[in-house]
Amino acid sequence: MAFLKGSDGVSGGVVSFSEEQEALVLRSWAIMKKDSANIGHCFFLKIFEVVPSATQLFPFLRNSEVPLEKNAKLKTHAINVFIMTCEAAAQLRKAGKVTLRDTTLKRLGATHLKNGVGDAHFEVARFALLETIKEAVPADMWSPAMKSAWGEAFDQMVAAIKQEMCY
Amino acid sequence: MAFLKGSDGVSGGVVSFSEEQEALVLRSWAIMKKDSANIGHCFFLKIFEVVPSATQLFPFLRNSEVPLEKNAKLKTHAINVFIMTCEAAAQLRKAGKVTLRDTTLKRLGATHLKNGVGDAHFEVARFALLETIKEAVPADMWSPAMKSAWGEAFDQMVAAIKQEMCY
Repeated sequence: MAFLKGSDGVSGGVVSFSEEQEALVLRSWAIMKKDSANIGHCFFLKIFEVVPSATQLFPFLRNSEVPLEKNAKLKTHAINVFIMTCEAAAQLRKAGKVTLRDTTLKRLGATHLKNGVGDAHFEVARFALLETIKEAVPADMWSPAMKSAWGEAFDQMVAAIKQEMCY
Repeated sequence: MAFLKGSDGVSGGVVSFSEEQEALVLRSWAIMKKDSANIGHCFFLKIFEVVPSATQLFPFLRNSEVPLEKNAKLKTHAINVFIMTCEAAAQLRKAGKVTLRDTTLKRLGATHLKNGVGDAHFEVARFALLETIKEAVPADMWSPAMKSAWGEAFDQMVAAIKQEMCY
């Protein structure tokens, strides 16, 4: 790509995402889309496997006695986040930016800041997302290039949210 | 065990760790001991795979331009931590406590506090340790009970360190 990237993967609002990266994201998203609810749920359960205390970042989990695996609010939240993440990744190249509505981005920035989400949490979410996609797609589809494409798309979404977090 | 455990896995300094848990730890540690340097290194690389920003918690990594895989100081640190952790786990039942010398515990408490290690970091280290041991022992040796035994031993070591962190 001709664009110089900043350290946050975004340069003046213009993102760099190659045709090859887009193709890898689209190919895997086409497979996963049919099973979004289940995969999104696995994504969040992986986050809590790595960092159990992250449940405290979610108001609807803080005082819940329902096991994580059976928590309906978590399931709904997980599918929303997973689809939003994958759709933003799928549209990244054509849109030239993270396609979340400005109001959504502002809300995400405010919510993440208010609930105490820090750099380490975003990193764990990135790790959990990549592990989850690796398990969700056919074994012969997963590759270092696909991992890198999803990692880049996630980084750009996080950069867009962080811009609204006013650290 | 007859002892009631506190939420930190420690009750009045007396820890609970069953004979079965001890046997599982001893059996796997006997296998891993010969390859401690390599396994300890994998343990730390796994931590940084999950949370890359955790390198900032280590003064000797903060301004280093040497790749993590080749950093000699990290290798030395990793083997020390890994052996200390495994030896403390192996001795936990017989000793009835986490067998780190009091001066070592005080130093560990002070160092972790000074360098900004938080709950989420300890949790990531726990996840990374269990994943690393899973990969290090023969596939037919790994089991949910072995995972639980190592998890319990790690929790008790962290509880002992946190007692010196004066949150």
